Amino acid sequence: MNKPENKFIKKAIKLSVENVKKGKGGPFGAVIVKDNNVIAKATNIVTSTNDPTAHAEIIAIRKASKKLKNFNLKGCEIYASCEPCPMCLAAIYWAGIKKIHYAASKEDAEDNGFNDKFIYNEFAKPLSEKKIQMHQLFRDKALMAFKEWQSKEGKIMY
Amino acid sequence: MNKPENKFIKKAIKLSVENVKKGKGGPFGAVIVKDNNVIAKATNIVTSTNDPTAHAEIIAIRKASKKLKNFNLKGCEIYASCEPCPMCLAAIYWAGIKKIHYAASKEDAEDNGFNDKFIYNEFAKPLSEKKIQMHQLFRDKALMAFKEWQSKEGKIMY
Repeated sequence: MNKPENKFIKKAIKLSVENVKKGKGGPFGAVIVKDNNVIAKATNIVTSTNDPTAHAEIIAIRKASKKLKNFNLKGCEIYASCEPCPMCLAAIYWAGIKKIHYAASKEDAEDNGFNDKFIYNEFAKPLSEKKIQMHQLFRDKALMAFKEWQSKEGKIMY
Repeated sequence: MNKPENKFIKKAIKLSVENVKKGKGGPFGAVIVKDNNVIAKATNIVTSTNDPTAHAEIIAIRKASKKLKNFNLKGCEIYASCEPCPMCLAAIYWAGIKKIHYAASKEDAEDNGFNDKFIYNEFAKPLSEKKIQMHQLFRDKALMAFKEWQSKEGKIMY
């Protein structure tokens, strides 16, 4: 039986292969689907646009949100040719997408020279052992922004 | 002594407060600095642009990369009014930024209704316990994109 989900994941994979052939960026594609309709499709364009955040899933989310005129993609599912990296996984949470279909794994990405698994491992480490330095300062001053936020009328949560 | 880092974090905090006053989005600001110069500054514009990925750090990274015409922001540091969420933290890794200065904590963000800490907690959970459904299919087919990638001449890694 040819389930719709097979068609959508194959589309994401096809995009990933074409992306390499066209030299647009890494071998990754993504499709966002709502009610069995493709809302957005995208590929990784990091190197061709000089944007380190331009992963397929991020671009697909940005396109879908623009199309639906909503920062919440409730009811959408995402199909990714590879397991999303931590940036894209968190973006999927922020977008309110509840289901991720993916083909290759983060280990496959790592085996091909991408840092997805390294970054996942960094997340699991305590602050002092992370490769990145994190330096906190002026916390009290920053709380002013939250005070301002709390007293703001008509604010929109996301 | 007024260290340069004090000036930059205060700038990020000022942006976060102004952002709430202007109603552009959440109470967050970020500044990217290279060689003591501000390369990019941004605020959270999720709700005003209908883009769930438009956190201050992501927008700042996109601006800085565009300005430097490079997807690698080596030598840059980021100043954020609040500890970066997982999406932004991973984006900072992908951008090659090695140091994060931040003011408020992810707990402060959580206390004010933002999901940063919830998403961090989700990352620490095994797949079966995550709130999001993850469904793998057609892995073998997806490996074709990596094969194409490996044989691609002149490819640019990131």
